[in-house]
Amino acid sequence: MRLVSYLNKAFKSNNNNNNFGSLSKLLIVFSLSGGGLVAYSESQSSSVTNNTEVEKALKHKKKVVVLGTGWASTSFLKDLDISSYDVQVVSPRNYFAFTPLLPSVTCGTVEARSIVEPVRNIIKKKNGEIHFWEAECTKIDAANKKVFCRSSIEGNLVGKNDFSLDYDYLVVATGSEVNTFNTPGVKEYCHFLKEIEDAQKIRTSVIDCFEKAILPELTEEERRTNLHFVIVGGGPTGVEFAAELHDFVHEDLVKLYPMVKDMVRITVIQSGDHILNTYDSRISTFAETKFARDGIDVQTGCRVLGVSDKEVKVKVKCTGENVSIPHGMVLWSTGIATRPVVKDFMDQVGQGNRKVLATDEWLRVKGREDVYAIGDCATIDQRKIMEDIGAIFDAADKDKSGTLTVEEFQEIIDDILIRYPQVENHLRDKNLSSVTDLLNDPEGNARKEVDIEGFKSALSQVDLQMKSLPATAQVASQQGTYLSSCFNKMELAKTLPEGPRRFMSSGRHDFLPFRYKHLGQFAPLGGEQAAAELPGDWVSMGRSTQWLWYSIYASKQVSWRTRVLVVSDWTRRFIFGRDSSRI
Amino acid sequence: MRLVSYLNKAFKSNNNNNNFGSLSKLLIVFSLSGGGLVAYSESQSSSVTNNTEVEKALKHKKKVVVLGTGWASTSFLKDLDISSYDVQVVSPRNYFAFTPLLPSVTCGTVEARSIVEPVRNIIKKKNGEIHFWEAECTKIDAANKKVFCRSSIEGNLVGKNDFSLDYDYLVVATGSEVNTFNTPGVKEYCHFLKEIEDAQKIRTSVIDCFEKAILPELTEEERRTNLHFVIVGGGPTGVEFAAELHDFVHEDLVKLYPMVKDMVRITVIQSGDHILNTYDSRISTFAETKFARDGIDVQTGCRVLGVSDKEVKVKVKCTGENVSIPHGMVLWSTGIATRPVVKDFMDQVGQGNRKVLATDEWLRVKGREDVYAIGDCATIDQRKIMEDIGAIFDAADKDKSGTLTVEEFQEIIDDILIRYPQVENHLRDKNLSSVTDLLNDPEGNARKEVDIEGFKSALSQVDLQMKSLPATAQVASQQGTYLSSCFNKMELAKTLPEGPRRFMSSGRHDFLPFRYKHLGQFAPLGGEQAAAELPGDWVSMGRSTQWLWYSIYASKQVSWRTRVLVVSDWTRRFIFGRDSSRI
Repeated sequence: MRLVSYLNKAFKSNNNNNNFGSLSKLLIVFSLSGGGLVAYSESQSSSVTNNTEVEKALKHKKKVVVLGTGWASTSFLKDLDISSYDVQVVSPRNYFAFTPLLPSVTCGTVEARSIVEPVRNIIKKKNGEIHFWEAECTKIDAANKKVFCRSSIEGNLVGKNDFSLDYDYLVVATGSEVNTFNTPGVKEYCHFLKEIEDAQKIRTSVIDCFEKAILPELTEEERRTNLHFVIVGGGPTGVEFAAELHDFVHEDLVKLYPMVKDMVRITVIQSGDHILNTYDSRISTFAETKFARDGIDVQTGCRVLGVSDKEVKVKVKCTGENVSIPHGMVLWSTGIATRPVVKDFMDQVGQGNRKVLATDEWLRVKGREDVYAIGDCATIDQRKIMEDIGAIFDAADKDKSGTLTVEEFQEIIDDILIRYPQVENHLRDKNLSSVTDLLNDPEGNARKEVDIEGFKSALSQVDLQMKSLPATAQVASQQGTYLSSCFNKMELAKTLPEGPRRFMSSGRHDFLPFRYKHLGQFAPLGGEQAAAELPGDWVSMGRSTQWLWYSIYASKQVSWRTRVLVVSDWTRRFIFGRDSSRI
Repeated sequence: MRLVSYLNKAFKSNNNNNNFGSLSKLLIVFSLSGGGLVAYSESQSSSVTNNTEVEKALKHKKKVVVLGTGWASTSFLKDLDISSYDVQVVSPRNYFAFTPLLPSVTCGTVEARSIVEPVRNIIKKKNGEIHFWEAECTKIDAANKKVFCRSSIEGNLVGKNDFSLDYDYLVVATGSEVNTFNTPGVKEYCHFLKEIEDAQKIRTSVIDCFEKAILPELTEEERRTNLHFVIVGGGPTGVEFAAELHDFVHEDLVKLYPMVKDMVRITVIQSGDHILNTYDSRISTFAETKFARDGIDVQTGCRVLGVSDKEVKVKVKCTGENVSIPHGMVLWSTGIATRPVVKDFMDQVGQGNRKVLATDEWLRVKGREDVYAIGDCATIDQRKIMEDIGAIFDAADKDKSGTLTVEEFQEIIDDILIRYPQVENHLRDKNLSSVTDLLNDPEGNARKEVDIEGFKSALSQVDLQMKSLPATAQVASQQGTYLSSCFNKMELAKTLPEGPRRFMSSGRHDFLPFRYKHLGQFAPLGGEQAAAELPGDWVSMGRSTQWLWYSIYASKQVSWRTRVLVVSDWTRRFIFGRDSSRI
């Protein structure tokens, strides 16, 4: 038996509950090749009911087609009980990539192969097979419940590249593409950082810039231009790449290219006033100070007008001036956009005038009962409480008196809090200790009862507190896990619905709506320093945070293989530095 | 101080002799991530005279240009004392690749990055700088002592891609290219295995074959065709790839692609009667038996007539039949050919009608005093003793008696043995115990003296024993080391020549001619079995040989970094298997 299967066995608890599985925590000391690193691993076991009785009973398994192999899709598939579903997965990538480490791949701090895991390994199940097809979904036919796919394998191989799959349920988890905001030249001349291949290309490009800059017969200005790295977008990806690149240059490349070491320049162009502006302002200031100390040039308040092979054209907002910045390489990391196949699907389901595919709070695509969308490709369209205000009032006003007493209101409070999470945000924002305080009069005095107009005005501010979720791995992963638990309980929920009361009709919703739990976010800033925003408004910065980052990122790896590889990559980097071979 | 520099320091003896440096041997126990591996490392230190006096004296350092960064070039540069040379290296690859492990890279047993080392790391010197330019030499201008180079970096970077370098000495070590023998379709439809990129392409192609074969809507025949891997050439590369592929398929892929596991076929096509026909026949038989047991189809006595995208056309020699073999992938590994830039140079130096660039025994290109050629790009044209027979006789016949006595012959024997190594081969072949036995009469009786005709007939068979050297890493590496020692002694040799007597003129040659020392060869055959031919006609086969192979290949790595990486790759493979992500 391979060591890895032994470990897997040791960490998998075989309890038969159908929920999220038990959590086993484990402290491992990796002592690898001369260096030591403590990795805190949280191994969440998937528990699968191996119930052949059930299987026999279900003669016709429902067909589930899943598009994508990213965070959302793999976390959905990992926990899915396939005894009642016939599952097929379609994606042009036959692997799952741990995308938060992509910036580290660009400079070889971590190897590309260390952060990928074959999707077939992840979706292997004991009680059946999930089929995976390496192909791209070219069209979703919502009316006929069909997806059309095409394999992207080119070359000499025989057999059809096109095929179609029927579904009973479709899970769209195709992720997003880069948003160029139609800026001219971006597609042609910029690097992106969304896929493994992007990171590998950036790695060779950086080396190319150095190899070219050092060639004989170049002027000093030409050398400087080739060694000017421009990053458009001061979000986490751009900042992390700038930090990685700075470390790569100053820890490794200056030793190998001493002739040009003083000619390197890194510039971050940000349209807003600060980099990392989705983070706490203390983090954003810390990052700017550190970058200033490191000599990384941060240009805030600049809008990119266009990119050519040699220059980035920028409008400086405060002066209104247009400036041309010569560059050797540009990374474009500004935002995300909807993929064409999803756009086409949106047209079919009446969402043609939206920018992003919308789902309800149960992650079902609005307008379709049988299609779910999770991860970056969709956004949850939270129901406004004001849209339902009349129905809520009617449901609560049990004695049909035309007024709502505090007691009547209290009876439906739990359902409201579950159905409209913005209520909780509103209470926090207004420092209200109890939901019934909402019914207080404008002066803040408690009221015994309110009529419909009073109820409306009491809740009129609530919907302002609706927040859309960020397009992060954390959200995608939680959505996948949530959706798999819904799928696993689908039959059960028909008789025992667990969701909140339906105000517009009778009965209850089948499931609790999806609720995101923010576990914090990191921003590694280079030089063994990182900043973190942790739950409870806790902000942590510096060296110890970098070590926390190492621990958490090691623990979050999808397999023991990638965990060991990532940790040994870090160790190797500490000992030997990064490799600058152009492969 | 980084661990690696500490280790380097610990293993470098700082003695000041100008020879090959002292040999420090070291037994290391790598205990990495759960597995253990004993690697026997032979670390040969380069000793460099850090003599600033000498440096001052040499106002005009001789310009040395080295083409290539393979085995020959890097072993030359590693040991070169640059206090008296201004060295520039030109190669399209900014790294050295440990090519004997290329077949392992094709299937991910070892990662590409584990077997490469930036050439700038290898050529770093304490007492000066060796310049490296990532560019390809496009033309050697022998008359003007110039090389023209072009950087292959494409894209947006500014500055000239072309430049030229003047040289006083040129070292050509550009290696060879693949020999297609003008077989139609080979360039278009076959994979090769000479560069890192080739190995990486093969790896994704193998995965492509599986991903395509498993797609829905393919017929069984189509699946079988896509999973038919054909290897043309039964030499070490082809055999090792077949073995690696077999292991990859049967140890890793069958678990991930269970649906098609019985449809995989591997075929080796060999024109000769046996695979591994440059090895001892016991090894070749062992390999054939093992392959038959593994289900690898070996087709001997077949000549490939052409390759198309779907088929390999083969002529079966014994029946004269033409057969078409459908394939999913073809690896072409049959032999080597001269690169165009070397061919053009050969035309300039009067070697236009030769197939391979010829050097003398001192590795100087024939016809040029200032150009050396080492490694696969050249072959040593060993001087025939019969060409010089008259001069040798005259030189030996000191009393000008017209006859050669045994005593007179004995005086020049040492010089003959050094100058004409075929004499020693001849003695061994004929089981003669002493060189003077050569002068025996045809019946084998000792003679006191011989005349010129007797001398000629005594040596007439000797030249049949001339052997050309194989195009291996071992030969290239020894040539590089030899040439660096010549360069390091260049000044000294002018006053104190160490070579054998010149028979055609007076005096002695500056240096001893290059002599290859065969240290044996390996053939890993998969399933943890290998065969080895070791010095002294010792043949070893089986599991223990595979472990010997691991040890020696680990010890031969150029840097501590690659050594640790290669060993940890092997360990990782034992624990987790190979990765099948298509990246």
